Order: sequence, then C-alpha cells, then structure tokens
Amino acid sequence: MNSFEIKRRVEYYEADVTGKLALPMILNWAVLASKLQSDALGVGQSTHLARGLGWIILQYEVHITRRPAVNEEITIQTYAAKYNPFFVRRPFAFFDAQGEEIIRVDSIWTMIDINNRRMARLPQDIVDKYQAERVKQIPRMPNPIKILPSDDMISKDYHVRYLDIDANQHVNNSKYFEWMQDVVPTEFLETHEITSINLKYENEIHLGHTIQSQVVLGNQSSKHRIMLGEVVSAEAEFNWRNVTL
Amino acid sequence: MNSFEIKRRVEYYEADVTGKLALPMILNWAVLASKLQSDALGVGQSTHLARGLGWIILQYEVHITRRPAVNEEITIQTYAAKYNPFFVRRPFAFFDAQGEEIIRVDSIWTMIDINNRRMARLPQDIVDKYQAERVKQIPRMPNPIKILPSDDMISKDYHVRYLDIDANQHVNNSKYFEWMQDVVPTEFLETHEITSINLKYENEIHLGHTIQSQVVLGNQSSKHRIMLGEVVSAEAEFNWRNVTL
Repeated sequence: MNSFEIKRRVEYYEADVTGKLALPMILNWAVLASKLQSDALGVGQSTHLARGLGWIILQYEVHITRRPAVNEEITIQTYAAKYNPFFVRRPFAFFDAQGEEIIRVDSIWTMIDINNRRMARLPQDIVDKYQAERVKQIPRMPNPIKILPSDDMISKDYHVRYLDIDANQHVNNSKYFEWMQDVVPTEFLETHEITSINLKYENEIHLGHTIQSQVVLGNQSSKHRIMLGEVVSAEAEFNWRNVTL
Repeated sequence: MNSFEIKRRVEYYEADVTGKLALPMILNWAVLASKLQSDALGVGQSTHLARGLGWIILQYEVHITRRPAVNEEITIQTYAAKYNPFFVRRPFAFFDAQGEEIIRVDSIWTMIDINNRRMARLPQDIVDKYQAERVKQIPRMPNPIKILPSDDMISKDYHVRYLDIDANQHVNNSKYFEWMQDVVPTEFLETHEITSINLKYENEIHLGHTIQSQVVLGNQSSKHRIMLGEVVSAEAEFNWRNVTL
C-alpha cells in the first residue's frame, strides 16, 4: 500500500464567511492529493490521457469533525485502498498541525473512455503502481436518502458558468457542493455546521446548462438533488449540528 | 521600501478550461501577497481590525503577458510604492520559474472605518512599516471607458452566492472578475486571450443581492459594468488578443 501526503495552508480566498475552509475546497484538496500521488508514481494525467482514459469519481463520503481556519496548516494523507477491475476505493484523512484527524473522506473512482464517456477497465499496470489490495467486490457506500415527491422542497436554478469548467473540459466536481450548499437558506447555514456528506454523481453537466439545485431540509439533515431537466445529475445527503451564533 | 514575495503553484482547481490560471486567482494571489506582507511586518488584520479599520481596494490595473499553466511555480513580488494620508499605491509582479515577468498588477488601496464603511485616514504607525514613499498626490489610474446608452450591450443576472462572501463578510473582490468574464459569450472567450484589465470598484454588494453583469464587446476590447439596480457597483475595461484555436 503506497500512502502519499501533501500539505496545504488555508488561504483567505479558500475560506467562507465563517473564516473556515469552504466545503468545495475539501474536495479540491482531496483530488489534488490523489493527482499528485499519481504524478509521483509516474501514472499521472499524461499516462492515462495517452490511452484515452480518464479517472472520474462516482461517490464521496465526507466526515467533518471540524473545518480548519484561515492560516491553518493541514496534511492530507491518501492511498488507494482496494480495487477490482472497474473500481478503486480511496480514503483521505486531513490532519491539523497537532496531528488530529479533523476531516475524513472516502471515495469510489472509476475510469472512463474519454471519447465515448463509457466506463473502462482499469489498466493493470497503472493500478499496480498504487499497491492497492485486489478484491472481488469493492465495498459499497450507502445511497443518499432520496427526495420524495411529498417532500417540502426548496429549489433554485444555477447556470453553469465558464469558470465552473476545469481543464478536463467538465464541470469541476466541487461545484456540486457549492450548488447544494447555496440553495440552503442563509439562516440555516448561519446556525448549523456540516458534519457529513454523502454525494453520488449520476450524470454529467456541461457548460451552458442550467441546473436545478433542490433541497429538503430536516432539523439536522438535508437531502439534495441536482437536476438537469428531468435527469438526476447528483444526489446527496448532508448532516448538520446546531451551532450557537 | 520593503519588498515582499510569496511562491504559489498553479493547481488544477485554480485553472480554467484553458488549463491556465483563472482570472480571479490573479487577484486572489496579489491580495494574498499583500496580506502576508502585512502579517510579516506585524500590522496584519488583527492590528487594524482592533482599531476598527479595514483595507479595501479601489482600483486595479492588470497587464498579462501570459497566464501560467497548471503545475507552474510562480513568484509574486509586491511592495507599497507610494502613499498619502488616504491612499496607497501597491504594485505586484508575477514571475515564472525562468524569472520572466508574466503578469503585472497595480492597485490603489484605502482604509475604511469598518462600522460606517467611510474612508479613514491611514494610521501613520501602520503605514511606516511598509517604508513607502510619502507623496502629496497618489498618481491616478485612468478611468475605465464607460458604457454608453447607445452601446449594444449583453447583460446577465447573477445572484450573490453564500460562497461569494469571504471571512471579511463582503463579496470577495475577485468575484467581479468572474461575473465580468462569464457574461462574455463562450465563442469570444474561446478565440480571445485577455491582455489587460482596468477595474474600478464603486459600491459594495452584499449576500442575497442580484447584480447585473453588463458587457459591450469590441473587436479586441470590452467594456464592463456591474449594476445593482440603478447603482453602478464596478466598471471595467478589458483588452484581448486573438488566439488561434
């Protein structure tokens, strides 16, 4: 098992109004750690792009003990834990300067053929580099609880912006977090702190699309859905704890 | 004159679809360099906040020779050049790994009383630390060319999002770049590369506001305006060069 770590400092433009690391940045830093590990192992983007393949994330689980504040120095540790011919399971742990684990992320990845966007078999020579454990079945993550037709739903339209698209020509994964959080009323965001996220991607979104971010608010939980017309693009479930102002 | 520098590497989530540093990040990195200089000189945020004062930017000029690509290591150099009792002029230079200057930013700053949002006199002991040159008049920047009523204008509404607000409780300055760029048609963005920006802030924007981003496109220039109802929030002028696809 090849473990890898990176260090990041929280800068002011990576924080939200609370002065703590913004939600989408958690995802950006996790993906950055896995990218840099792939580069370090000599199987980075140029290797798989040359074969017409790209990594995509299918599902995330995020557990947040606390979000780090501006100026904090964070270590992000990751490794490819288990794989089978189609999937890899990759955990990430975020440690603060005292060595306390403050955020844990788990993720399921697959590879797609860049041209037809279909799932592809993982090339053995690439997977071998990560020294993951080969398993028959990748342990599944629970599905996010679905929004029901009877639920009292809040919904808002978001136009996919030029800067939502990254160098891979697709909507940056972390934008889904932004749309899902932004539709939650400010009064709720000001009195609640997020403790966990379970997010599952279903269908891709492109530049120029207008998506609908839908949320059903519970007391300490929320159900989310990103819709592109009648098509579900992503579903998620967030958990929250009350905070005193 | 106290010069200061920081180093940053372009990460994938800081790039746009071209694989090069996104426009708003230029501003974020410049402001970061000035913040870290203030911290290093012992006159950072805690010092001026304790006196009820905050720094704000009034105007920017940005000249871009080339935007750095993902993985490039950039050095950002800055110093407070000139000041008078109300204004500071601060340049920034971005150098690539070969020591070539690839981006140059100039900026005019003032301090405001946090409570009434009015301009405040710069405290002499704070300004002294930067060892800037004291002048009678801060050299002015030209005003961006204004949009005329007769101009053929493209306009789009943007709702101020939760994550547009930073830890200072205000819309992050760099969001104006995003709104101004996003309203430009994709076909133009795909065939033009930005070479310079002159942006002047007029009035603040807050969470929950819906602003209008307006643009008048020329051949190799564009005029921009951010409106909050009938109030001008910012004006800008961009210059572009043609790029071959």
